[in-house]
Amino acid sequence: MTIATRLCDLGIVLPQPAAPVASYVPVVTAGGLAYVSGQLPFIDGALVTGRMGEGPTLEQGIAAARACALMILAQLQGAGVALDRVERIVKLGVFVNSTPDFTDQPKVANGASDLMVEVFGPAGRHARSAVGAILPLAALVEVDAIVALSPA
Amino acid sequence: MTIATRLCDLGIVLPQPAAPVASYVPVVTAGGLAYVSGQLPFIDGALVTGRMGEGPTLEQGIAAARACALMILAQLQGAGVALDRVERIVKLGVFVNSTPDFTDQPKVANGASDLMVEVFGPAGRHARSAVGAILPLAALVEVDAIVALSPA
Amino acid sequence: MTIATRLCDLGIVLPQPAAPVASYVPVVTAGGLAYVSGQLPFIDGALVTGRMGEGPTLEQGIAAARACALMILAQLQGAGVALDRVERIVKLGVFVNSTPDFTDQPKVANGASDLMVEVFGPAGRHARSAVGAILPLAALVEVDAIVALSPA
Repeated sequence: MTIATRLCDLGIVLPQPAAPVASYVPVVTAGGLAYVSGQLPFIDGALVTGRMGEGPTLEQGIAAARACALMILAQLQGAGVALDRVERIVKLGVFVNSTPDFTDQPKVANGASDLMVEVFGPAGRHARSAVGAILPLAALVEVDAIVALSPA
Repeated sequence: MTIATRLCDLGIVLPQPAAPVASYVPVVTAGGLAYVSGQLPFIDGALVTGRMGEGPTLEQGIAAARACALMILAQLQGAGVALDRVERIVKLGVFVNSTPDFTDQPKVANGASDLMVEVFGPAGRHARSAVGAILPLAALVEVDAIVALSPA
Repeated sequence: MTIATRLCDLGIVLPQPAAPVASYVPVVTAGGLAYVSGQLPFIDGALVTGRMGEGPTLEQGIAAARACALMILAQLQGAGVALDRVERIVKLGVFVNSTPDFTDQPKVANGASDLMVEVFGPAGRHARSAVGAILPLAALVEVDAIVALSPA
């Protein structure tokens, strides 16, 4: 089964890949690995903003992390990397916009992690770090990725 | 000398590898590198919590960073990677739970860095970034790693 | 044209590579990639300190990020890696010392990104993550890097 079919079966439509908000590129490939820039969460075309611990619910945080993961896939595709070439999601770096007292970053980050496993199965199981930070544009979550690819 | 002997000589007993607190895996290997997920500090089985700058001493921070490094080794072993295959500790990413006014993240992070050099000698000398962040479960330190392995 | 000539044409003089503020090394090479430790901003030999959102201007933030990028190049050279071997700047990790309300980390980070493109042209275009954090020694910015190298 192709990943396109799998996305379709899951009812997932990838977003338009967002333009970088600055002077860098969304994806660089080196040595068989794709390095994907930190992606912000867009749902229905709107940036999800806020800070965990002062308003957004855990569900909203999880949905934002999932949206970041979808944008990672959209960026790979937008950079000409067919998703069927994904051999392994190697590493996700998850930054959660957090008040000093919010400590459930792992639960939020699961929104991204679970999406990868839904889409890629065992190949979607990755290493991860998840921390609280202060985020660009007041985004609720930012996720970057390292992805192992099979030869084109 | 094997690393097992070296650990024994140093009086170091690796902890039980902690289960991921979320839906990811502790170690992914790709292209000869092992990517180890961010590890939290456990000492005598208990998570070390707190925030540098409002209670914990520098010594406690250093001990917590060292505990994260030990957990990285335990996770490698738990994932079936013999520690004798470590060719180089390539990179540590150190996140220190910090108040806005705490600026000694490098001293805290040395707890992890020094442990790697103690155990692996020159092969333990690594690149590193160390920053203050807000951490999961109020952990005092989180450390992730990239490790170069010789073929199994 | 060599990178040395290019730097000269741009009027750029690399700084002295700063000694690590702790027990790690500035550069580790593995599998054709150089991992450069998080670099702090030095301008005229002095560390640039402060926190975006409570004093420093955007221009000062950008200049600090650029100084971090120059230090990355200085560290590569100091580690014996000729800059002409740079095939691609693969990834920059940018940490901006930020108050909770500062959200222009991407604009600050562009100081580092733009420098890489000035020096290396298309090979300088990289993936990037940029977040706000609490930084060592109250530095205004910290940047680490992954750089693809051609064989020595």
